[in-house]
Amino acid sequence: MEYYSNHISNLIEQLSSLPGIGAKSAQRLAFHIMNMPPDQVQKLAESMTDARNKVQYCKSCYTLTDQEECPICSNSDRDHRVIMVVENPRDLAAYEKTGKYNGVYHVLHGAISPMLGIGPDDIKLKELMQRLQNQDVDEVIIATNSSLEGETTAMYISKLIKPSGIKVSRIASGVPVGGDLEYIDEVTLLRALEGRVEL
Amino acid sequence: MEYYSNHISNLIEQLSSLPGIGAKSAQRLAFHIMNMPPDQVQKLAESMTDARNKVQYCKSCYTLTDQEECPICSNSDRDHRVIMVVENPRDLAAYEKTGKYNGVYHVLHGAISPMLGIGPDDIKLKELMQRLQNQDVDEVIIATNSSLEGETTAMYISKLIKPSGIKVSRIASGVPVGGDLEYIDEVTLLRALEGRVEL
Repeated sequence: MEYYSNHISNLIEQLSSLPGIGAKSAQRLAFHIMNMPPDQVQKLAESMTDARNKVQYCKSCYTLTDQEECPICSNSDRDHRVIMVVENPRDLAAYEKTGKYNGVYHVLHGAISPMLGIGPDDIKLKELMQRLQNQDVDEVIIATNSSLEGETTAMYISKLIKPSGIKVSRIASGVPVGGDLEYIDEVTLLRALEGRVEL
Repeated sequence: MEYYSNHISNLIEQLSSLPGIGAKSAQRLAFHIMNMPPDQVQKLAESMTDARNKVQYCKSCYTLTDQEECPICSNSDRDHRVIMVVENPRDLAAYEKTGKYNGVYHVLHGAISPMLGIGPDDIKLKELMQRLQNQDVDEVIIATNSSLEGETTAMYISKLIKPSGIKVSRIASGVPVGGDLEYIDEVTLLRALEGRVEL
């Protein structure tokens, strides 16, 4: 790209290596950055290196946090006897946004996927089992995604935990609230039927 | 966002302030960055500050470059007697990608827009007129966008230059190559008709 300076080409290249940012968006973003006040660019750049360098896994639930233990795990008002297992911190955030869940979490950082060669040892599953041994837990709610990988992981975890006598549950699958039946796939419709609740 | 660490919240906030990046994309990008090797994050962050701090306007054509004069202006193989006027460096890049234009450029960094309060003095127009006085130029090709602002700017520039006797041209408007007539707006269709060329 002779027509851009090296610094701009480099920025465009770096930006287009991010997920969901194609060549055109990278170019548009790069020129936006070039037009931002220098101190704002500095802040943006620092927010990246800071987040990367200062954030670590919570020693209990393995979500990303800047303390040794995350605010949820160190909150004694939360019910530490109920653990919701999620695939990643974004899923944790999604449940936190509901404001209705008062237990704690366990973040797997992935899901079992034979296709991608991700096995049980590649996610934070040993850590979950360890936690269940060291801590009194009444219920483990498995909230992995409703994808093939998520379901496989849910099945695997439930088989692993069942012998210990701890209650294991799975979040319900079904028609999303506000969802129009005609636009919903057949598998979801069948799940919704199977999981029907008496009124 | 109690459920994210401050560093992550800050990164998400910074990213979502960029154009075309909404809350969800910012979150996805932030977690991607958290999972990148630290040295790659460093490189990404530096590419931003470097581009912002080390890039300047070319002293001739006002494109963004890291030298005093951009590679195009300092290339003696290019025809310096033909100047293409574009709104921004991305448009310059678009024409460079064709590989068929051998003249030089002038980057306005905007277009005249009474709606947005952008007047002739807010773009690099004085600089263009200065350049035409100091330099022998045969033709000025106006390649501003085919929008209301681009057309206004083109008209304004052409009126400004005409008295000097320098040839002024405007890139053709019409049906894009491969464009299906039925999906093209009426204004474009009329332009294509008006601009018809004898075969």
